Amino acid sequence: MRHNFGAGPCILPQEVFKQAAQAVLDFKDGLSILEISHRTPEFENVVEETTRLIKELMNVPEGYSVLLLQGGASLQFAMVPMNLLPEGKTASYIETGVWANKAIKEVSAFGKANIVASSKESNFTFIPKDFTIPEDSAYFHFTSNNTIYGTEFFDFPETSVPVVCDMSSDIMSRVIDVSKFDLIYAGAQKNIGPAGLTVVIVKDEILGKSGRKIPSMLDYNSHIESGSMYNTPPVFSIYTAMLNLRWLKSKGGVAEIEKENKAKAQALYTEIDRNPFFKGTCAVEDRSRMNVCFVMQNPELEKPFLKFVEENDIEGLKGHRSVGGFRASIYNALPITSVHTLIELMQIFEEKHQ
Amino acid sequence: MRHNFGAGPCILPQEVFKQAAQAVLDFKDGLSILEISHRTPEFENVVEETTRLIKELMNVPEGYSVLLLQGGASLQFAMVPMNLLPEGKTASYIETGVWANKAIKEVSAFGKANIVASSKESNFTFIPKDFTIPEDSAYFHFTSNNTIYGTEFFDFPETSVPVVCDMSSDIMSRVIDVSKFDLIYAGAQKNIGPAGLTVVIVKDEILGKSGRKIPSMLDYNSHIESGSMYNTPPVFSIYTAMLNLRWLKSKGGVAEIEKENKAKAQALYTEIDRNPFFKGTCAVEDRSRMNVCFVMQNPELEKPFLKFVEENDIEGLKGHRSVGGFRASIYNALPITSVHTLIELMQIFEEKHQ
Repeated sequence: MRHNFGAGPCILPQEVFKQAAQAVLDFKDGLSILEISHRTPEFENVVEETTRLIKELMNVPEGYSVLLLQGGASLQFAMVPMNLLPEGKTASYIETGVWANKAIKEVSAFGKANIVASSKESNFTFIPKDFTIPEDSAYFHFTSNNTIYGTEFFDFPETSVPVVCDMSSDIMSRVIDVSKFDLIYAGAQKNIGPAGLTVVIVKDEILGKSGRKIPSMLDYNSHIESGSMYNTPPVFSIYTAMLNLRWLKSKGGVAEIEKENKAKAQALYTEIDRNPFFKGTCAVEDRSRMNVCFVMQNPELEKPFLKFVEENDIEGLKGHRSVGGFRASIYNALPITSVHTLIELMQIFEEKHQ
Repeated sequence: MRHNFGAGPCILPQEVFKQAAQAVLDFKDGLSILEISHRTPEFENVVEETTRLIKELMNVPEGYSVLLLQGGASLQFAMVPMNLLPEGKTASYIETGVWANKAIKEVSAFGKANIVASSKESNFTFIPKDFTIPEDSAYFHFTSNNTIYGTEFFDFPETSVPVVCDMSSDIMSRVIDVSKFDLIYAGAQKNIGPAGLTVVIVKDEILGKSGRKIPSMLDYNSHIESGSMYNTPPVFSIYTAMLNLRWLKSKGGVAEIEKENKAKAQALYTEIDRNPFFKGTCAVEDRSRMNVCFVMQNPELEKPFLKFVEENDIEGLKGHRSVGGFRASIYNALPITSVHTLIELMQIFEEKHQ
């Protein structure tokens, strides 16, 4: 069995792969999920169930819409200011990594971005804590988990302005209070499902105030009005996301998976701190429970260690080039046994090289 | 065996379903295609091969880029004027159906649309022939095949301005000369692959002239520069499209499939014209080879006929609500034996009700 620590698109439960493969062969009456019309009652049920499962698993309050879109978080970087930032106004952003930075850059076509804080000078190894969000900001945007650097927000910023969050890499990994957010978006390809789907959760009342003419496909309201069926949706990605959300529900939902995620992260960080060959790269209090970044005390041992784990069925452990070392992505579907295997390999490596 | 005449997402070859299902279970070393990073060499090869197959099958000349995007033709309705229409300029469109009309509507956020001709008053039963494209148009846009109404352009408009074509429902069904076009786009979910992928073929030199600040994800140049990997692409849809394009190549390519498509369309239209119970809905010279629309001479027999064919394994024959009657979509992957089965059922129905 391979242990997939890849950062995304990432591991999903084995039973989801089996069910998805079966639907590619025969979804209904011998027809593949790839050849059915998105307007059939069967697929309308899939969209309905997927939307309902997201609402249920995240306890989405009344007054919010859940949308199943395309284009990834990168398209949201533009859609957010297009929909929420009136001409000449300013939106506040906190710069905690490359993805936050990309979101900031996309504001310029629509208005001005105000960077309230940044950890860029330390290569994003921590989450800035002391910053002020101007009350005349059109909204405040942050990235709840920084996939590349392995930092995560544990205390969400309090502000009177609308809060927008890129939750791509930690959505549904922990219980959050959706009512504290005005817009949440996430590329599906970590904890939701395969690539090709983007989930948006938006408080309806914040929309329609930009004063801007917005193309239909880029207007959240078009997708709300059409129930995520404004045009042909990414059928297979939605179907597989539904299977994965069913799995999450069967596991006891987000509160239960959060316990497992905490146990996985704690076990791995404990080993990183104990093992004299390794060290974490981030401020301890900001350490992500999804992406565990670490390096070796002796950088010359990094190649041999990577080779050693890869020979032992570990996949995707190489760190992002901007951090180096290793990144163990331990998303919902990664079993704790995979974490235990990695820890064991770290200990064997330690013994061998002492 | 079921005969899938659905208008899209539509039938793909059975062997493509089998290969795609296998990759969901095991793409490489026991890992699913759904859990691999899009930055692995294996998936980079998939993007490269898919792009190369499109270029090869369509004989795309030098100076053009082939892009694998998301958002469907509907997002292209906005991206085309955003990228090609300078502020205050006019683009020319021909209105040949609901999709052409939707494309026209999206221009208003960027400039002015000039409708050179329309067949709206006849419920789009024909392709207008006599029209003038003003030479100061930023571009001319048309829809090569009108999925809902069953009409298709067989003589492409000649003009000195850049030509943009929504080829969603007949791309790769017949040989076309790409050099006569400046931008071709197509939602994948007819002849290319499953939903969730959009193909764009663009002449590089027409880009970068709008004078407009374009968000990165909506700028064709971002995708050209990044080789369709600006952000996480729709991995599974691209992979399955690659399988389908391999199949098309193995069949002898577009020229060979065009012969089959002509034979399928001819057989079915011949029966519609011969059988006294049926009649076609479109001008004979504009009849689509992809979507064959027909009604019954006696509308009261339409429900019984639909029930009869559905009991005999025919899927997706019901016409679009704006036309009524029946629509037989006979895309590349639909075998001619399915067309023969439908013709036989039309003949049996004729005998029974005489």
